[in-house]
Amino acid sequence: MAVSALDIDGSQVERLILELGAIGAHGGTGVWRTVYSPEWVEANALLARWFEGAGLAVRQDAVGNLWGRLPGSEGGKSIVSGSHVDTQRPGGRYDGALGILAAFVAVKALRERFGQPKRTLEVVSLCEEEGSRFPTANFWGSSAITGRTRAQDVDTVVDFDGVRIADAMRQVGLDPGRIGEAVRDDIAAFIELHIEQGPILEAAGLPVAIVEAITGMRHTEVCLTGVQNHAGAFPMDLRNDPMAGFAEIASGLIDTAHRMGRPAVTTIGRCTVAPNAGAVIPQSVTFTIDARHPDLDKRRHLYATHDALMREVAQRRGLGLESRVLFNHEPRLSAPHLVALLKGAAGELDIPTLTMASGAGHDSQQMAEIADFAMIFVRSKDGRSHTPEEFSSIEDIVAGIRVLASALHKLAY
Amino acid sequence: MAVSALDIDGSQVERLILELGAIGAHGGTGVWRTVYSPEWVEANALLARWFEGAGLAVRQDAVGNLWGRLPGSEGGKSIVSGSHVDTQRPGGRYDGALGILAAFVAVKALRERFGQPKRTLEVVSLCEEEGSRFPTANFWGSSAITGRTRAQDVDTVVDFDGVRIADAMRQVGLDPGRIGEAVRDDIAAFIELHIEQGPILEAAGLPVAIVEAITGMRHTEVCLTGVQNHAGAFPMDLRNDPMAGFAEIASGLIDTAHRMGRPAVTTIGRCTVAPNAGAVIPQSVTFTIDARHPDLDKRRHLYATHDALMREVAQRRGLGLESRVLFNHEPRLSAPHLVALLKGAAGELDIPTLTMASGAGHDSQQMAEIADFAMIFVRSKDGRSHTPEEFSSIEDIVAGIRVLASALHKLAY
Repeated sequence: MAVSALDIDGSQVERLILELGAIGAHGGTGVWRTVYSPEWVEANALLARWFEGAGLAVRQDAVGNLWGRLPGSEGGKSIVSGSHVDTQRPGGRYDGALGILAAFVAVKALRERFGQPKRTLEVVSLCEEEGSRFPTANFWGSSAITGRTRAQDVDTVVDFDGVRIADAMRQVGLDPGRIGEAVRDDIAAFIELHIEQGPILEAAGLPVAIVEAITGMRHTEVCLTGVQNHAGAFPMDLRNDPMAGFAEIASGLIDTAHRMGRPAVTTIGRCTVAPNAGAVIPQSVTFTIDARHPDLDKRRHLYATHDALMREVAQRRGLGLESRVLFNHEPRLSAPHLVALLKGAAGELDIPTLTMASGAGHDSQQMAEIADFAMIFVRSKDGRSHTPEEFSSIEDIVAGIRVLASALHKLAY
Repeated sequence: MAVSALDIDGSQVERLILELGAIGAHGGTGVWRTVYSPEWVEANALLARWFEGAGLAVRQDAVGNLWGRLPGSEGGKSIVSGSHVDTQRPGGRYDGALGILAAFVAVKALRERFGQPKRTLEVVSLCEEEGSRFPTANFWGSSAITGRTRAQDVDTVVDFDGVRIADAMRQVGLDPGRIGEAVRDDIAAFIELHIEQGPILEAAGLPVAIVEAITGMRHTEVCLTGVQNHAGAFPMDLRNDPMAGFAEIASGLIDTAHRMGRPAVTTIGRCTVAPNAGAVIPQSVTFTIDARHPDLDKRRHLYATHDALMREVAQRRGLGLESRVLFNHEPRLSAPHLVALLKGAAGELDIPTLTMASGAGHDSQQMAEIADFAMIFVRSKDGRSHTPEEFSSIEDIVAGIRVLASALHKLAY
């Protein structure tokens, strides 16, 4: 059945968003709430009160994720929904937090309307998805759940001020030696609602998307070296100019992704020139390539095209080319049965959706290690995120929560 | 006549180069000799002894240029040769210093062989051509001679450590209030021998070039602004990516100069990206354009083509475009009669030459304000300069000095 009659009160949702967003408030609409900070402690305490008030059993796990549990009458593996409570420095009120509130509102409404489910439902507030305090530790909370956190990480990971994550954990009452206890092997499905963080829904005029894949992503650092020389005295035809090579390569890579069409993306976000002087042909240009595609074959083709273009340009221009892969994340496919379930729920509710790949990374891609997953995207104003200006309307948010609640109902009741 | 029999002793020239290069020696072949430093004082003191030993009347002018004068029997305006004694930090033994030594060796040999000239010959050691101590004061010595230094400059120009140039002058016994006294209005011709600093002579297999023009040069700083967004969540077709615009513009500008052919050059030497993060579509890319051409019409065409391309790309890609001209130096033409004289002298001496424009700036372009000028270039190994590795062979240097001496003979005897 579609829980079309399930009452999701928009003004109530808005109140929750504002109340949670007040913890770590930064300027007008900003939120600055990093993991294991006083604001993080306060936010999870508020969520714990809300969870308890709605009849959920609350516990904090060994890494600091907060769980609210509604046990099912038939036991078995859990159906989980949630997202991360940490923000950028500063971020806004929606990135992460909205997924926790959506899960809470949905499970609370389901319990009030339908009572105890057959299968166990859980709401989760994950920690340090962003890596905004510990830059090498993004997906810290979800990685602990899937067992991908290594025991030694607690002693090697440090924040921007040099504080070890083990010490930050102790400060909030967590024992870093017990981080392994956060592992779960009893989650059947993870459904995460999140803001889109892009302009696709807005451009399409739709409130909600069903995410069928999380893109694969490769970050490469490339250094092109030439021969540093006098900008006036060296004729163009005798130069080995790494800036000329970089410009041709950057144009070519960006054009390649553009011509391949959505959802291929390639971004040159960082570029450093040496010696970086106006009247000197550079010695070297170092840059990063962020290239993403959720389809394995097309991704391989995108990367191969990029690599071949760089080799060809460097060779033709007599430039040295060194490149190293900083990281390479495989794409993750949503579970087809969950995608179908979400599409079906939206259809029954007459909520128009599109199906898309996520170009951003999410906790869901970690949860994919141990559970089926799918995601719901809610339209972002101007496609913005990671900024106090990020915004989604209450109408769109309620539409997303209704799809989520309907899917959880189908799975758990 | 060609002074083909004039003896220029290569080993003697080499000894002078090494002895002057030892003052401020930096590593193996480097020289670090900035204006008004102890090394600068010591270098000019050595030159003064050499000038006096060769029978020249020595004086230091109000800005610190050192002059060695061989009075002519008929008076009138002087025929001057020389270059700058200051170096990069570090530079090598040849850039600047070679032009002083060449003038000294030529005038000394002419006096020894032919006695007093009809017209006055002068050798000059100019100061702070490079701007290597006072970055805003390049051509400081030659500008004082032509009267282009403003009185207030002595109080506003500061070095990398914040020392005012007035105080640096006082430290070496110069009165900054008297800088106006360095002005000369009695120079008929200035002939400067300099290393090429480029690869054109080496590529042509020739020792010496006659310089018919000093290129015109424009430095422009350009800022392209787009919309900063998530590198994963924003499709290529909805981006306003200033890096894509920059890459297309840089490629186009460099290709334009390349296609126009020698001596057009365009260099993108400096580029700064904000926020410069791997996974973020940049907000802005700021870069400099160094574009040069010695021909007024072609230079206008080069700049117009550059400007039109930038406007077109920025408009098509929806990017903000701000550009400001940092400086714009007009080209300077050598005096045709001096170019003809130098070519004729080289021909009589059977020294093969080519005629070219200088792509670098030189004191000669300042002296052009008050005198006819021409330059002689000596082949640079690998086209290098502004580095301890710069090198020219004694054979090539002697060839250049012979052309210089012959031209000075024709002008002054």
